[in-house]
Amino acid sequence: MNNPKEEIITSALSGFMELLPAQQILFNKIFDEIRKVYEVFGFIPLDTPILERSEVLLAKAGGETEKQIYQFKKGDTNLAMRFDLTVPLARYVAEHYGQLVFPFRRYAMGKVYRGERPQAGRFREFYQCDIDVIGNETLDIRFDAEIPSIIYMIFKNLGFKNFIIRINNRKILNGFFSYLDANQISNQIMQTIDKLEKVGLDEVNRILLDLNLSQDKINKIFDFINLNNKTKNIISDLNNLNIKDVQFITGVKELEQVINIIKEFGVPESNFAIDLTIARGLDYYTGTVYETRLNDYPEIGSVCSGGRYDDLASHYTKHKLPGVGISIGLTRLFDQLTKRGVWQTENSSTTRVLILPMTTDLVPSIKLANKLRINNIPTEISFIADKIKKALGYADKLGISYAIFIGEDEIAKNLYTLKNLKTGEQELLDLEQIIEQLNIRSF
Amino acid sequence: MNNPKEEIITSALSGFMELLPAQQILFNKIFDEIRKVYEVFGFIPLDTPILERSEVLLAKAGGETEKQIYQFKKGDTNLAMRFDLTVPLARYVAEHYGQLVFPFRRYAMGKVYRGERPQAGRFREFYQCDIDVIGNETLDIRFDAEIPSIIYMIFKNLGFKNFIIRINNRKILNGFFSYLDANQISNQIMQTIDKLEKVGLDEVNRILLDLNLSQDKINKIFDFINLNNKTKNIISDLNNLNIKDVQFITGVKELEQVINIIKEFGVPESNFAIDLTIARGLDYYTGTVYETRLNDYPEIGSVCSGGRYDDLASHYTKHKLPGVGISIGLTRLFDQLTKRGVWQTENSSTTRVLILPMTTDLVPSIKLANKLRINNIPTEISFIADKIKKALGYADKLGISYAIFIGEDEIAKNLYTLKNLKTGEQELLDLEQIIEQLNIRSF
Repeated sequence: MNNPKEEIITSALSGFMELLPAQQILFNKIFDEIRKVYEVFGFIPLDTPILERSEVLLAKAGGETEKQIYQFKKGDTNLAMRFDLTVPLARYVAEHYGQLVFPFRRYAMGKVYRGERPQAGRFREFYQCDIDVIGNETLDIRFDAEIPSIIYMIFKNLGFKNFIIRINNRKILNGFFSYLDANQISNQIMQTIDKLEKVGLDEVNRILLDLNLSQDKINKIFDFINLNNKTKNIISDLNNLNIKDVQFITGVKELEQVINIIKEFGVPESNFAIDLTIARGLDYYTGTVYETRLNDYPEIGSVCSGGRYDDLASHYTKHKLPGVGISIGLTRLFDQLTKRGVWQTENSSTTRVLILPMTTDLVPSIKLANKLRINNIPTEISFIADKIKKALGYADKLGISYAIFIGEDEIAKNLYTLKNLKTGEQELLDLEQIIEQLNIRSF
Repeated sequence: MNNPKEEIITSALSGFMELLPAQQILFNKIFDEIRKVYEVFGFIPLDTPILERSEVLLAKAGGETEKQIYQFKKGDTNLAMRFDLTVPLARYVAEHYGQLVFPFRRYAMGKVYRGERPQAGRFREFYQCDIDVIGNETLDIRFDAEIPSIIYMIFKNLGFKNFIIRINNRKILNGFFSYLDANQISNQIMQTIDKLEKVGLDEVNRILLDLNLSQDKINKIFDFINLNNKTKNIISDLNNLNIKDVQFITGVKELEQVINIIKEFGVPESNFAIDLTIARGLDYYTGTVYETRLNDYPEIGSVCSGGRYDDLASHYTKHKLPGVGISIGLTRLFDQLTKRGVWQTENSSTTRVLILPMTTDLVPSIKLANKLRINNIPTEISFIADKIKKALGYADKLGISYAIFIGEDEIAKNLYTLKNLKTGEQELLDLEQIIEQLNIRSF
């Protein structure tokens, strides 16, 4: 190609997050923390391909989702980039059914793709951090109750106190709409209720009348969602509505069980609540549903959502595979919280110490570096230590906390001068003292 | 869609690695080990998008590479999936030049895509694990010498002893071919030399004659590559060839420096060697080049390769950015070594202990689980502990090492029965003893 230099746009594509080093280090720290929690709860890692046959990804998709999918043809095969981690999980479990142990607890943390029109806070490539527990034919309701304790540990470990895991059960909603003989328009009703805070009661009432609901039914809807404002006894209030619909009754019973076990799981009462307005999309979930909100940033919306489904992989297998899972959209969450300064970057390097050899002989510096590295202390050796100002400038710009000077004197005494670059203090230490000092982390 | 159940092929695409849990756990263990080494050497993480503008990825590509790239159009934009991690790095450094600190040491570990015709041992989606050190205008040769010590630590930590990092310098080759006035056919000569072991000296001689080389020049080529078989004094032998080409002389000098510093870096003499036949593709690299072979599995070829380049991002920026880097093709390496049984899977779960509540009250089990999890011990609670055989069967199938039984007795005494599921031994222990016991890992 002839000199394309002038023409090439070197920016990353719009809607594709790309981070500078300090941000990337922070992102990875959060990613690793989520991964750690998933692992201590006994979830197994799974990494499926980003590309799948289009027919696999589109088996269930439709409408908006289908339009957003990155699809193309290579040779004779129609390919698509995954738009979530659940459809590949369904395909995986169907394919490897005989080789898996159920309940199958898996976590997956990877990139997914949605070619949406780019808008503020939306991404076309983003990380999802998912867990799911998949049962074979049945799955105990206690798995539904364990999920909030995982959400709780994650957000607590990420430094939050003020968040609420909101819980509902789709059977209650389905049963309630059946009871109103309004199943056909349940979607529109839920969307209208969602606008309550924004447009007020009168406007919501007007829209519901437009949906051909009688004022009597609308009043029942208001009574139902008003239960939400109560913090206690929602379950008995739900029972007191005296709705005889079987689904409704089952849903209330399941919700009661889940709420009771969540308490046993040690999630503080201030961090979870029943929220009867949560539906999480109307096709997929069939039982418990979750959303999680940060009370100080309600405008972000839910930061961790999920729920129970009756049958994960009905498009790919005849085995009935009920499951429960959650997803954290980490790219968006990271974007929102760093913008607000809630998550703040620190250093542009994870290097803990820069070794400056003050002699031409590199061997003492290299020996020390090797020992520090074996002790998991990220270490660099400066190859410009003769230009000491430049070497320390490099450390300063990256936020490296310590420097070690190794000159004739230090070599003779088998000691090292450790300088704290943030405070300017320096000490003459032996190897063990150096390791001890460098192992004290601020996080 | 109407009942597509019968038609959907549920297998992952051919050429796309997908692992069962035990394999995935092993893969992640190796991935994490490589990442750890990169981090202790002070490399900064970088994660660029998998999709880029086609013009960015194709600025330098051509021929075979271009045919393999997954490309498609979405809206008005030509998109392509990255086929390596170096081109996106070049684009990134050009774009963020003013915000980076040089030398910029970055690691990247992610999936890349090549739509090759699938064949045994080749993948269309695979992980590359890369490091590069990028200088601004200049980059000290000692960075070239540091790279083998990183390769050494990685393969040592992965359990290998018997491997050789082969080192050459492209200037020596370029200078040598200049001296022979054979630069135009250097590519074909190198490819012919590569066949030496396979087809023998006579056949190689014949092919070289076909390339219109004189027997005198061919003899010089044989003299040159014969130096390879010597283990000592290759540098002085190269000097003794008395080749006056400037590039050749510079190359020998650089190689000498690199080899000397590698020794200082503590890489054992048995783990590195000069290999004058290594070229690593003829366009990209301009100085030091590396390959790494496992002596016991020579047929795998190089497991970690790389080198020095003069200018990373000439297609995107006028800044001169010399660099040196390596790449490990982890997907292929994993495939090759697990097939041979060199890397063996162990368990299908990383869960360390399964808690079996023997009472209906879950609280003591949950409290214990929370304490173990805070101590980073992956823990599950069985919700089928009433079916004790089934619960232990689950642990057994996953390879979980320990079970803890919590019954009335244990609750009363505030002790726990810890059972080693591999040996059958069981002990009554308190919390601290449990944590201590479970923290002893086999790896």
